[in-house]
Amino acid sequence: MKSEIITIGDELLIGQVIDTNSAWIVEQLNTIGISVYQITSISDNRQHILTTLEEAQKRADIVLITGGLGPTKDDITKQTICEFFGSKLTLHQESLSLIKALLLRRGISEIIENNRNQAFVPDNCTVLLNHNGTAPCMWFEKNEKIFVFMPGVPFEMKAIISDQILPKLKTIFRLPEIVHKTIHVQGIPEALLAQKLETWEDNLHKSIKLAYLPSPSSIRLRFSAYGNLPNTASLREKRSNLIADEETERLLHGVYTEPVERVRNDKQNFEKQSLIEIINQEIIKLQKIIPQNIVSIDERKIEEVIGEILKSEKLTIATAESCTGGNIASLITSVSGSSEYFKGSVVSYANEIKIQELNVNAQDIEKYGAVSQQVVEQMATNVRSKFNVDYSIATSGIAGPNGGTAEKPVGTVWIAIASKNNVYSEKFQLGEHRGRNITRASNTALSMLKKFIND
Amino acid sequence: MKSEIITIGDELLIGQVIDTNSAWIVEQLNTIGISVYQITSISDNRQHILTTLEEAQKRADIVLITGGLGPTKDDITKQTICEFFGSKLTLHQESLSLIKALLLRRGISEIIENNRNQAFVPDNCTVLLNHNGTAPCMWFEKNEKIFVFMPGVPFEMKAIISDQILPKLKTIFRLPEIVHKTIHVQGIPEALLAQKLETWEDNLHKSIKLAYLPSPSSIRLRFSAYGNLPNTASLREKRSNLIADEETERLLHGVYTEPVERVRNDKQNFEKQSLIEIINQEIIKLQKIIPQNIVSIDERKIEEVIGEILKSEKLTIATAESCTGGNIASLITSVSGSSEYFKGSVVSYANEIKIQELNVNAQDIEKYGAVSQQVVEQMATNVRSKFNVDYSIATSGIAGPNGGTAEKPVGTVWIAIASKNNVYSEKFQLGEHRGRNITRASNTALSMLKKFIND
Repeated sequence: MKSEIITIGDELLIGQVIDTNSAWIVEQLNTIGISVYQITSISDNRQHILTTLEEAQKRADIVLITGGLGPTKDDITKQTICEFFGSKLTLHQESLSLIKALLLRRGISEIIENNRNQAFVPDNCTVLLNHNGTAPCMWFEKNEKIFVFMPGVPFEMKAIISDQILPKLKTIFRLPEIVHKTIHVQGIPEALLAQKLETWEDNLHKSIKLAYLPSPSSIRLRFSAYGNLPNTASLREKRSNLIADEETERLLHGVYTEPVERVRNDKQNFEKQSLIEIINQEIIKLQKIIPQNIVSIDERKIEEVIGEILKSEKLTIATAESCTGGNIASLITSVSGSSEYFKGSVVSYANEIKIQELNVNAQDIEKYGAVSQQVVEQMATNVRSKFNVDYSIATSGIAGPNGGTAEKPVGTVWIAIASKNNVYSEKFQLGEHRGRNITRASNTALSMLKKFIND
Repeated sequence: MKSEIITIGDELLIGQVIDTNSAWIVEQLNTIGISVYQITSISDNRQHILTTLEEAQKRADIVLITGGLGPTKDDITKQTICEFFGSKLTLHQESLSLIKALLLRRGISEIIENNRNQAFVPDNCTVLLNHNGTAPCMWFEKNEKIFVFMPGVPFEMKAIISDQILPKLKTIFRLPEIVHKTIHVQGIPEALLAQKLETWEDNLHKSIKLAYLPSPSSIRLRFSAYGNLPNTASLREKRSNLIADEETERLLHGVYTEPVERVRNDKQNFEKQSLIEIINQEIIKLQKIIPQNIVSIDERKIEEVIGEILKSEKLTIATAESCTGGNIASLITSVSGSSEYFKGSVVSYANEIKIQELNVNAQDIEKYGAVSQQVVEQMATNVRSKFNVDYSIATSGIAGPNGGTAEKPVGTVWIAIASKNNVYSEKFQLGEHRGRNITRASNTALSMLKKFIND
């Protein structure tokens, strides 16, 4: 089952925005077993739209189009859609009511012409209501192909895809059962990870595909296990199988009810369970290869994982930060509910603050330097006792680009973790880039804390 | 002058990465007056590549292609390129030397087959050396159109575009003089900003185009002033005008020397100056409309602007943070050299830390609540005196999603700025989203500090 994505609008073609919509849509389509053949970004120009739709339908079964439907730029796209599908614009009463209600919630009681025009849709499309914006979503079927025109505003588009388009596609097409699972890995560069996992990857169960999804702070490994291949019969053939009567036909264009789904679900539940089992087996093998690097067997970030551990064990924490400059505290408090376990932090950027606020021994700073095991351990120990918490994290290092010496080059970072009876510290040699050094030191510190608590 | 961008590779089509390359390339091309007609993402499949190249050359003068050139996936793309341009692969000695040197720097002294293959290029292309990676960049001219194949790794691609492709395109095409200037705006939502600027925008000098480039923390306004329109003659016609002899022809395929550039520069310097003047006139008008919201008349962020002020005035600063959880300290210390003016911070997430570390009056917390003018002003005043700095910032608020009350709903934030003789505080009602509330509170606090120092 092949699909294509078309984005309409100048924003991408003048470099104004980065196309994050397409990556999200691809991920959603993949989740239900639909692959994406091409992504095309074009301007809102009549001929350009017509040509692109024409070409896309030759290659794909499903064409998802975003953008070009705002209140001010509605005209060209919608007129062009009418031309392509041989339709006339007609007022869609339900959309008009929704638009009025939406504007009212925003404090606007009088509807202007531009907004009213948005409720006009081609007369031969199925309208998917947009509950978060003023542009209705339009679903067409032509030459056995499906075309869906959606607004480009990310949260409007996402809601329509999740709540309406994906369920509808699942009803129309017989798609393979697919199970996805994502693992969060940290503390290992991508190339080294790939090398360590090479043999394991080569021997992955044949139903599984693996994707590396790297970000500046971690790598997500996405497992996708595929069930039986999709039936590649055409939409029309599928229909004649699936659809017995007019009632079901109506369902295809409106809201589908349980029965249709239930029949499919009964058959697929067994397969789904076995796919989950296949992935779990691979994860067990993976855990033996990189036991230290797996942050979570799901999408959770390290700060969320730590938050859950601290919360469930009723433990508290504080940080004393030099080179990370408050970034660890900032990560911890990015998690909702962190006030239950995070008491606070001393960011001791200047040496005098290390001495005055964290009782670090001034002579030790003199003798060993601020970036030293002696100093970072005192920072951790003292912030823990001063803030009266169970655990503490301390950092001291040279983030760069300046301040490095031959003995302690840029990227040298000491990290310490303290508990009531123990303190553990480790030295790291990170890179040359200030921002990445701060990010890596922060994430490494949180990983160390997790290991420290687990041990 | 029209261009198209094609990205080759599965990464985008399985949702593995977001296409940030294209937005960057668009911005660079726009800078020298080349517009982008279409962006297409395709897989590394022979027929798909051939068809896409065929279609792109019908629409555009310049086709820039990224990706499909890694050491493991080289084959399909390069064989297909040979098919399209009627070429044979031949060893490019200079690239081979570069690859060997690069691998040696990474500690690899023996070159493997995959890497050696990367030095083979089509015999009818001009090689643009890749100094940052193993895949050479290939420049073709066919039917008066230019095709450039680049590696997809962002920093390799960026270096080649900036250092080689843009200068080369400027030599070949007569492009309009374009001047860009970006202004950083903060503390005003995009819709409200657009409304305030409507009249001014409608009356912008006709040579100017304005783009809104929003990010979670601020909005960049990009001015682009265009000189005379490009000569739309074909590449070949341009050539016959521009190129007098074989020597210049060679320059087009290698490094161009000064003379060619100097002639153009003399003519264009005058125009450039007048375009800069046109933009500056508009900025003066803009400053009168939103005097409080302009952070910088360039790309600098608020934390950089403040850093420069503090450094030049030899002033010091500290923060006392509750709801921002260390994020302000983190922003300040993201700037290289911040240790010259930033002494540190107390992140007082728990009330006991506010009392113990910042000497906030416990009865005031009891009476007014932690999110109150009384508390935030004490936090600011006391951290300033305790850390012995010239200025301080304090925050206390409800980031959400929980913790709100009828009186103090989620998004209520108090921010205070203190100097030796003065303290100023203000209450803000931000939104419902935790992450955005923290970002907005942090940026608002930094803007307040800037205003406080300036006043």
